[in-house]
Amino acid sequence: MTDTRIDGRADDELRSVTIERGWSEQAEGSALISFGRTRVLCTASLTAGVPRWLTGKGRGWVTAEYAMLPRATNSRSDRESVKGKIGGRTHEISRLIGRSMRAVVDTKALGENTIVVDCDVLQADGGTRTAAITGAFVALSDAIDWAVEKRLVSAKATPLTDSVSAVSVGIVSGRPMLDLAYTEDVRAETDMNIVVNGSGDFIEVQGTAEGAPFNRDELNALLDLGVLGGSRLAQLQREAFA
Amino acid sequence: MTDTRIDGRADDELRSVTIERGWSEQAEGSALISFGRTRVLCTASLTAGVPRWLTGKGRGWVTAEYAMLPRATNSRSDRESVKGKIGGRTHEISRLIGRSMRAVVDTKALGENTIVVDCDVLQADGGTRTAAITGAFVALSDAIDWAVEKRLVSAKATPLTDSVSAVSVGIVSGRPMLDLAYTEDVRAETDMNIVVNGSGDFIEVQGTAEGAPFNRDELNALLDLGVLGGSRLAQLQREAFA
Amino acid sequence: MTDTRIDGRADDELRSVTIERGWSEQAEGSALISFGRTRVLCTASLTAGVPRWLTGKGRGWVTAEYAMLPRATNSRSDRESVKGKIGGRTHEISRLIGRSMRAVVDTKALGENTIVVDCDVLQADGGTRTAAITGAFVALSDAIDWAVEKRLVSAKATPLTDSVSAVSVGIVSGRPMLDLAYTEDVRAETDMNIVVNGSGDFIEVQGTAEGAPFNRDELNALLDLGVLGGSRLAQLQREAFA
Amino acid sequence: MTDTRIDGRADDELRSVTIERGWSEQAEGSALISFGRTRVLCTASLTAGVPRWLTGKGRGWVTAEYAMLPRATNSRSDRESVKGKIGGRTHEISRLIGRSMRAVVDTKALGENTIVVDCDVLQADGGTRTAAITGAFVALSDAIDWAVEKRLVSAKATPLTDSVSAVSVGIVSGRPMLDLAYTEDVRAETDMNIVVNGSGDFIEVQGTAEGAPFNRDELNALLDLGVLGGSRLAQLQREAFA
Amino acid sequence: MTDTRIDGRADDELRSVTIERGWSEQAEGSALISFGRTRVLCTASLTAGVPRWLTGKGRGWVTAEYAMLPRATNSRSDRESVKGKIGGRTHEISRLIGRSMRAVVDTKALGENTIVVDCDVLQADGGTRTAAITGAFVALSDAIDWAVEKRLVSAKATPLTDSVSAVSVGIVSGRPMLDLAYTEDVRAETDMNIVVNGSGDFIEVQGTAEGAPFNRDELNALLDLGVLGGSRLAQLQREAFA
Amino acid sequence: MTDTRIDGRADDELRSVTIERGWSEQAEGSALISFGRTRVLCTASLTAGVPRWLTGKGRGWVTAEYAMLPRATNSRSDRESVKGKIGGRTHEISRLIGRSMRAVVDTKALGENTIVVDCDVLQADGGTRTAAITGAFVALSDAIDWAVEKRLVSAKATPLTDSVSAVSVGIVSGRPMLDLAYTEDVRAETDMNIVVNGSGDFIEVQGTAEGAPFNRDELNALLDLGVLGGSRLAQLQREAFA
Repeated sequence: MTDTRIDGRADDELRSVTIERGWSEQAEGSALISFGRTRVLCTASLTAGVPRWLTGKGRGWVTAEYAMLPRATNSRSDRESVKGKIGGRTHEISRLIGRSMRAVVDTKALGENTIVVDCDVLQADGGTRTAAITGAFVALSDAIDWAVEKRLVSAKATPLTDSVSAVSVGIVSGRPMLDLAYTEDVRAETDMNIVVNGSGDFIEVQGTAEGAPFNRDELNALLDLGVLGGSRLAQLQREAFA
Repeated sequence: MTDTRIDGRADDELRSVTIERGWSEQAEGSALISFGRTRVLCTASLTAGVPRWLTGKGRGWVTAEYAMLPRATNSRSDRESVKGKIGGRTHEISRLIGRSMRAVVDTKALGENTIVVDCDVLQADGGTRTAAITGAFVALSDAIDWAVEKRLVSAKATPLTDSVSAVSVGIVSGRPMLDLAYTEDVRAETDMNIVVNGSGDFIEVQGTAEGAPFNRDELNALLDLGVLGGSRLAQLQREAFA
Repeated sequence: MTDTRIDGRADDELRSVTIERGWSEQAEGSALISFGRTRVLCTASLTAGVPRWLTGKGRGWVTAEYAMLPRATNSRSDRESVKGKIGGRTHEISRLIGRSMRAVVDTKALGENTIVVDCDVLQADGGTRTAAITGAFVALSDAIDWAVEKRLVSAKATPLTDSVSAVSVGIVSGRPMLDLAYTEDVRAETDMNIVVNGSGDFIEVQGTAEGAPFNRDELNALLDLGVLGGSRLAQLQREAFA
Repeated sequence: MTDTRIDGRADDELRSVTIERGWSEQAEGSALISFGRTRVLCTASLTAGVPRWLTGKGRGWVTAEYAMLPRATNSRSDRESVKGKIGGRTHEISRLIGRSMRAVVDTKALGENTIVVDCDVLQADGGTRTAAITGAFVALSDAIDWAVEKRLVSAKATPLTDSVSAVSVGIVSGRPMLDLAYTEDVRAETDMNIVVNGSGDFIEVQGTAEGAPFNRDELNALLDLGVLGGSRLAQLQREAFA
Repeated sequence: MTDTRIDGRADDELRSVTIERGWSEQAEGSALISFGRTRVLCTASLTAGVPRWLTGKGRGWVTAEYAMLPRATNSRSDRESVKGKIGGRTHEISRLIGRSMRAVVDTKALGENTIVVDCDVLQADGGTRTAAITGAFVALSDAIDWAVEKRLVSAKATPLTDSVSAVSVGIVSGRPMLDLAYTEDVRAETDMNIVVNGSGDFIEVQGTAEGAPFNRDELNALLDLGVLGGSRLAQLQREAFA
Repeated sequence: MTDTRIDGRADDELRSVTIERGWSEQAEGSALISFGRTRVLCTASLTAGVPRWLTGKGRGWVTAEYAMLPRATNSRSDRESVKGKIGGRTHEISRLIGRSMRAVVDTKALGENTIVVDCDVLQADGGTRTAAITGAFVALSDAIDWAVEKRLVSAKATPLTDSVSAVSVGIVSGRPMLDLAYTEDVRAETDMNIVVNGSGDFIEVQGTAEGAPFNRDELNALLDLGVLGGSRLAQLQREAFA
């Protein structure tokens, strides 16, 4: 019996994470992030003004959209634009990313500006939503810095209240593991995505029993791993900004 | 400072829950469930055969759809059928209900039969997804009994491996509370939906910081309340079947 | 040869009709109406303002939407929201209900207010559109009373010019019959829906030869039955308001 | 007070009706029909085989689709193909034409063949649906003759059981009138479309109170006019085939 | 070996072209144009005002929509309105017609008016897009004359800078040919659509190798033919206006 | 007056072109291609089998889809998946890429296999469709080599009959120029896309007068430039394969 995972990692080890800021020269903020073979291009588009329902309240708006290229995965999927509708999974992840970003933005300080974060998965190998959140924060932060420089946002009170990152954890063959690759994800009995801020507090916790239900001890082990992974990702984000 | 909630409940108290089995005479199984003023009509439709991608594998399929009547809420919403697309929230809840049902069904024992559970919210006052899951299980169970009686499913090994129920919990004004009504839900700093089986193990845990992030102690308090609520709901389900 | 119908009714007899006002606590007016096993939840939502094309003309607007729960019928139908488009039958009935309501509303007296009547069929056993119209009037009337109370509409001149109800009639096995149940409807040679006001005048007459064409005598017999049914339903509406 | 109508017709007079058979050289049957300035191109497409739900029953299928060119009317309407959905009115008329055609077709005699009748309004001046039905029958009949010639349908028992035509009637300024032009139609208090077979029996009767409800005497006067108009149209159809 | 084409034409000969102005009495400008059996109804709808993105710039807007009746072709196609989306070919041709019209309109001189040109193919036998462009210009021109007469557009500076027409050319069995009929089009090795103004300059050139790639000499031969056809069509347009 | 272009290039000079084969590890063939700042990810997905309408004919199928990330451009565009329909421009370019690929594939030699080429624009600075075609060929070629290696396609007769590349040319300020960047493209009087095979013959020629019409001399100058650019791109493709 082996103690290591398919790719040789320890159970509490992240895949190799790289963050390339400014990959897209068109957006106000952007980052190409990879968690192993998973690669997500995150752009943050900042424009003056807010949606109509928010007009005149002195507050900004942050939202997100997630999508996958048709051949990001091992076999090609039909484009949602061709099908004419967005699938449930896409909707769900877009909403999760949007909530995660809003959790660290003070919309008063943002002023009447709108930021749309786009996370497009160029290559998928498990953990696309958590890579997307982690990269989206970098793009978001750079877009806000751009806005401060352009004097669209006041330099006195930054709209960012903290950083945010996300990681997947799961129980595979009875062992709690951090940052599942695709082959681990499909075999996981329990699958959990954990979004934490830079202080290690929870922004979102989503755990699902894929096989047997999980008990409180298992849940606790997964939460421990998630908080650990989150603190490492926060460190990698800080290094990217350095 | 008051110790009770708007409707006079204690923090760890469910709203009045009623379950009316067989409310729809057309479906193989059905239940009109209410959590206070929240009212959801759940029907389970069982048909022989499975979707094409599952044909010939000797296993059944369970799926769910959630929807709201346009005037279930305090102000009317446009119908998704008129808009021509299903919103993200609807998709997300439909998927959650489906996963929750599948977590307690042995699809081998179900044989090549398909069950579609429809949860239509007739009146909404918070907690519609948790009421839907709790009621859906009752409809599902009755549909399976119907199938056993019709000899579509073998009486020897019931496809149901356990019961399942769900409840919302949240932190409102700093206090962890069980089964939030709408007015509590909109004020909650943290909002969590917990799906448990009849043994009190977790099937799904979804917690979201609506305001400030939550720490591990708060998370633990919410999980305790959720497990408590789940065990009461399991008891109410048993009484409904009696 | 038997003189009575499947459910023991005489040819000119309505099914048991019940009208439960205020079933939905959220809407300005609501009624759960049943014609035998057919059950329709009707809500009337009144909001200040009118659609843009009517702005500034000092007149109100009344419209209606009809829909069926997927398992209202004996076998499950796909949701129109999932299919992404509304079928012809749904459109046709929504338009009929809207015209029927507008026929008894003085839109000048309504002022610049909009009423949307939603008729959702919870259980279907024939005659859903006629039950919907009959119940919709009750919901509409209660919503207008609410608006008068809230001083959104003047108490001096009620916008309602009359009541309205509807009933189906048909020729089954050569015999004209009132208020067809589903099993009668599918066997009918001629099928007719008649919408009358409280004075017994016609608002809408829609007759279709399902089998052989019908002659003038048959048409007259059906019209006689429809007027008779309409006057009984008007009486039941008055009792509901008492 | 004037005794004649805007265009000089008597109250019981049809507009000038022309029927040009074979206008479309591509279809198995076709007719360009005009009722005054209303012009509808009707084509009947006959193909071997039936929709899946009808396969193997030895019966054929007839259906219809109605549409308007965007500039058929006085001001341009958006295309339904561009809007991405078909409006309620279009659906309703398509269904009416289909039912009217099926009322005179013996689907057993048609054999497992499908006929799709397309009615495209090239220019609209009131009465488009009735012109469409009247022209559709001509196209349908020619398509069936084509099929008999090609031995797709047996020559022994023609699938056509009768002819069918339709005309609008209405009460304008208190006077019952036949075949309303657009300017009459918009002023009509009551509007009725009557579909009759060649023997003068009713296939469909659809009357709507646009203003005040109508009484039995008015209804009778409209039915008389409709039957009269139907018999003249049947004569014009016979002349077209001569 | 024969020197003439299927229908007896010489290689550089157009089919018989007819242009019937004012065929639609509803539109500001209209023309029914035929290139042999290909028949397209073109209408130009002129309304005051421009799309929002153009407001206040003192310029007008011209756009076009192309569509085919379902039975314009030899076998029936599904309606794009029923399918709920417009196909790529339709989009492409609509865009081409719009660009071709805009190429001869001075939008400053047009003032803040919008013209929508609709080209509906009533019967198709090859070359529908080129017939559409040639007829669209006639409808456009008449609509502008109408606007000048109504003083919506100044008579001093006509918005039309030139005329525009289009023709297809292709290489069939190695021979360059003008104005391909459908049976020639499907056999063509190279297919080209050429849009020219009244002076013989190019507005659009679109050539596609359907079989083997084409060389510069072949391209030149096709361009020569296209210019020749364009000058003949310009002459026919002038005659139609005479 | 200056002789060079904004970015210092000569009029007949391509931008810097890079081709990174195998950028996507999931697809059978892939290439990240850049023309200056324009960056397109091309993947070719090869699967056994063909669409139903081609089954049993012993021939393969090649098709393409083009799309842009929402923030590929200078300001963000709405996603077509969110809008629920694909725009005309997207359709047109997808069709162009598909035709260009099919022009160099012998579908008999491909056997009953399907190749879908996806071209997703990650960053746009003019010439996205021509970069897409040039990169798509590289991905296509690698996918075919993969299939030969897997013995899905015979090694004896390669399905590729030639190479294919594309380049834009245009007249800017009266000067014919090769490979327009975005700022040149928006100022071009005439814009042309030229698709050539490796032998310099034409596969597609699409020229559009954006401002004034163009004459034969201008057209000839553009064709010369296009052929020149195509031969350089063919050379770069060969180097990428080396």
